[in-house]
Amino acid sequence: MEPLVADAEPARRTRAARPARRDNAAKIAGVPYIVRNIPTYDILGEENLVKIERVADRILSEVGIEFRDDPASLDHWKRAGAKVEGVLVRFEPGMLNEIVSTAPAQFTQHARNPAHNVEIGGSNVVFSPAYGSPFVMDLDKGRRYGTLEDFRNFIKLAQSSPWLHHSGGTICEPVDIPVNKRHLDMVYSHIKYSDRAFMGSITAEERAEDSIDMARLVFGRDFVDRNCVILGNVNVNSPLVWDGTMTKSLRAYARANQAAVIVPFILGGAMGPVTNAGAIAQSYAETLAGCALTQLERKGAPVIFGNFLSSMSLRSGSPTFGTPEPAIGSMVIGQLARRLKLPLRCAGNFSNSKRPDAQAMQEGVMSMLSAVHCGANFILHSAGFLDGLLAMSYEKFVMDTDFCGALHSYLAGVVVDDNTLAMDAFLQVGPGSHFLGCDHTMRNYQTAFWDSALSDNEPFEKWSEEGGSTDMATRANKRWKKTLAEYEVPPLDVAIDEALTDYIERRKNSMADAWY
Amino acid sequence: MEPLVADAEPARRTRAARPARRDNAAKIAGVPYIVRNIPTYDILGEENLVKIERVADRILSEVGIEFRDDPASLDHWKRAGAKVEGVLVRFEPGMLNEIVSTAPAQFTQHARNPAHNVEIGGSNVVFSPAYGSPFVMDLDKGRRYGTLEDFRNFIKLAQSSPWLHHSGGTICEPVDIPVNKRHLDMVYSHIKYSDRAFMGSITAEERAEDSIDMARLVFGRDFVDRNCVILGNVNVNSPLVWDGTMTKSLRAYARANQAAVIVPFILGGAMGPVTNAGAIAQSYAETLAGCALTQLERKGAPVIFGNFLSSMSLRSGSPTFGTPEPAIGSMVIGQLARRLKLPLRCAGNFSNSKRPDAQAMQEGVMSMLSAVHCGANFILHSAGFLDGLLAMSYEKFVMDTDFCGALHSYLAGVVVDDNTLAMDAFLQVGPGSHFLGCDHTMRNYQTAFWDSALSDNEPFEKWSEEGGSTDMATRANKRWKKTLAEYEVPPLDVAIDEALTDYIERRKNSMADAWY
Repeated sequence: MEPLVADAEPARRTRAARPARRDNAAKIAGVPYIVRNIPTYDILGEENLVKIERVADRILSEVGIEFRDDPASLDHWKRAGAKVEGVLVRFEPGMLNEIVSTAPAQFTQHARNPAHNVEIGGSNVVFSPAYGSPFVMDLDKGRRYGTLEDFRNFIKLAQSSPWLHHSGGTICEPVDIPVNKRHLDMVYSHIKYSDRAFMGSITAEERAEDSIDMARLVFGRDFVDRNCVILGNVNVNSPLVWDGTMTKSLRAYARANQAAVIVPFILGGAMGPVTNAGAIAQSYAETLAGCALTQLERKGAPVIFGNFLSSMSLRSGSPTFGTPEPAIGSMVIGQLARRLKLPLRCAGNFSNSKRPDAQAMQEGVMSMLSAVHCGANFILHSAGFLDGLLAMSYEKFVMDTDFCGALHSYLAGVVVDDNTLAMDAFLQVGPGSHFLGCDHTMRNYQTAFWDSALSDNEPFEKWSEEGGSTDMATRANKRWKKTLAEYEVPPLDVAIDEALTDYIERRKNSMADAWY
Repeated sequence: MEPLVADAEPARRTRAARPARRDNAAKIAGVPYIVRNIPTYDILGEENLVKIERVADRILSEVGIEFRDDPASLDHWKRAGAKVEGVLVRFEPGMLNEIVSTAPAQFTQHARNPAHNVEIGGSNVVFSPAYGSPFVMDLDKGRRYGTLEDFRNFIKLAQSSPWLHHSGGTICEPVDIPVNKRHLDMVYSHIKYSDRAFMGSITAEERAEDSIDMARLVFGRDFVDRNCVILGNVNVNSPLVWDGTMTKSLRAYARANQAAVIVPFILGGAMGPVTNAGAIAQSYAETLAGCALTQLERKGAPVIFGNFLSSMSLRSGSPTFGTPEPAIGSMVIGQLARRLKLPLRCAGNFSNSKRPDAQAMQEGVMSMLSAVHCGANFILHSAGFLDGLLAMSYEKFVMDTDFCGALHSYLAGVVVDDNTLAMDAFLQVGPGSHFLGCDHTMRNYQTAFWDSALSDNEPFEKWSEEGGSTDMATRANKRWKKTLAEYEVPPLDVAIDEALTDYIERRKNSMADAWY
């Protein structure tokens, strides 16, 4: 069969412009994120959702949540009418739902290049790189601790992908920089090497403040006070504990009108019940409390309702990822978040594999599809994770971004109109012929199908004789190196760059290095 | 963390008994197939479904379908009131819908071991191995033509998996046996080496008859006349042509009250329109005509509504598999089949990869999840396919059966009841503690989570130092060899075995070898 086009290598992304071909979903929407054209996959009916909400109410009112080492949070809860005894806070049913009703159902996160602003909430889907691993790995050098160079490399790979929409946050830990200073380098790297929206630090209140201050240098103080330009991903210390470090950072973001992403990590059987329904109820309760706290700090501040359910291997006691129970759990969490009218973060592309192999993609695809089906609006961990969240893999990163491309087509769904129904083609071609050259095919073939840049679709003989019998990991290895070699730094206003550099220098000089 | 159980290696399957552990879904249902506990994923609304049905009506009434080399089919259509001109048959809108209304919405396919009977239709899901590849491959010997030994090996691997429900049909082509005789060896092998339900030949009418006759030797003539004991998978020659070989086999199965599976293979842009909506309408029309023909041959005969949509690489013109467009297309086909109240076959686990690598599972999982989401009742091609349907891979086969195990848990959904909601656990554990030893965990941990036999969930150090740094393909290679070594032939009544052997000998002696 003759190829329909001589060279369909996807166009490399140029700054502020989407590729002309392949990007069906973005073309439909005309925006640098996905507007989904398929419904959410709602797996539970009203009666069961209410049962879960009732148990969450009981957890919140009968068991309560501890807010440790942050008296200001406790003051908020007292003023709001919660029962506060020591650090334990209990909430009357319905109270938190009322409080979160002031949070926006959808908001814009601004990028320094306005063409890359993303809309978070509603039918919109934003893909962001994985977050938080201490290690990196590639096929050449194996696994080792991440450095600032790795961190910047992943920003460059993300910026170069037409299928990611966001620069992410702590893509990997740059362990060559002191713990108390690395947030400055990370935020600067996002601003310098990407022109997309990004995330700041949450590991200490002053690091959250630094992150927001640096965003103010880019966008201006007034603009930041009125618009979301940075996200902070804060974790619950499950079960039912909010640590002061997290609530102080959460409040710093909310106070600045920036969006906290509220995420309990519940490994069923350890940090929560071993059964899905209970873990979902707990996750819901913990997230709801965090979301409400943002509104007590600043009414109307944007916030994202997150979750991260995980399972466990009975053989080893190890956490497992990309398994069916969390995939199903995300779908329910999605339904619950929509009832609260809050933007949603769920799942992501997780695997426990130590290689970019079949296990990596089997687990990753199951996990990522659940994020897409559950209606998640902001999908952190869309690309790169291996080794149970401990390592960012260069090869997996480009495999995952390729799969994010496929998801653009998937989320575009089926367009049903006179053109796509193709009655003219059936009348022209008739029985027993073929559609290769018919008018309808010529009119539509260029945008018809997702065409992966990493999958091999050649005949076996061509693959083995000309293609070197490669596997996907080997092709991915070539691709990330090529992408890094071709990467170009997006222009940044010199005055802003200098202001940031100056800020970082002053802040670094004010602190002794801390390495733990 | 201490393991919760000392040894959770999944119990090997013994004949006529499900494994005691892990098989959550089967345990819930108490049957050797899956009764889904999650809804189908319906992506189109009524208005768009009707638009597609209307175009199918127009294809059937204005363009028509050719029924070649089978005058008896044309006679059926004439008597039913269709417009027949030469071999072209055109159908008034609604006519075929009326005819298929006599087909059962659900039926039992009997296995020679009644404990393995499967229910096809409704909320039931049956996983069956891949079908029809000329090649086989493994990590040791690479790709080569399939033989009868390979064919039997795959039957043994299927029979040994607790996660498949069916023995399948032409798992691979045994090319060492003459074309006109191999169906006898294939059917015999299914009966001899498996005690599950299986499929017969369709490559010629007399081979279909042989397959059914051999089933009669196992089940008895009267039983076969009243019950489905064998399936035949027949393909449309898209676009809009039914070849006589296929319709004669289809009618042979229907005449014997056995189930034909009706499957158009449409590669968009070649055998159908390049746009999904049109390809879906065509597939629907072609399948509907085949299903109706079974009812004209024998009213009430079981039949399965199938489809196989595929996409194309614009760069090479090659077909592509496991891509987003067919995945989405299956969901729509599922909705349409349910409106006809017919059992459904969709998608399967497809990949174009030539290795059991990341591409293989990325494409396979996307494809297989769409089959599960679309509501398919009989999922042929659940395990083994690589190389664009051309090769059965031993490693991929056991990877896929492992993934079928995960799908048992996925399809079990979320059980919401007092136990799973775990309020007692929250009251017992409280904030800041852990659930590892609490009563609720001890009561539920054994059935809580899917635990893959092939995924590595160990810490990196243990994986690299004790585990040999394996990838999933290497582990799969060990596993299929171990499974074959441990396989035991299920008992078969000696008289039946002799009757089959005698039948085969007589039939083989009646024909000269044909090799093409």
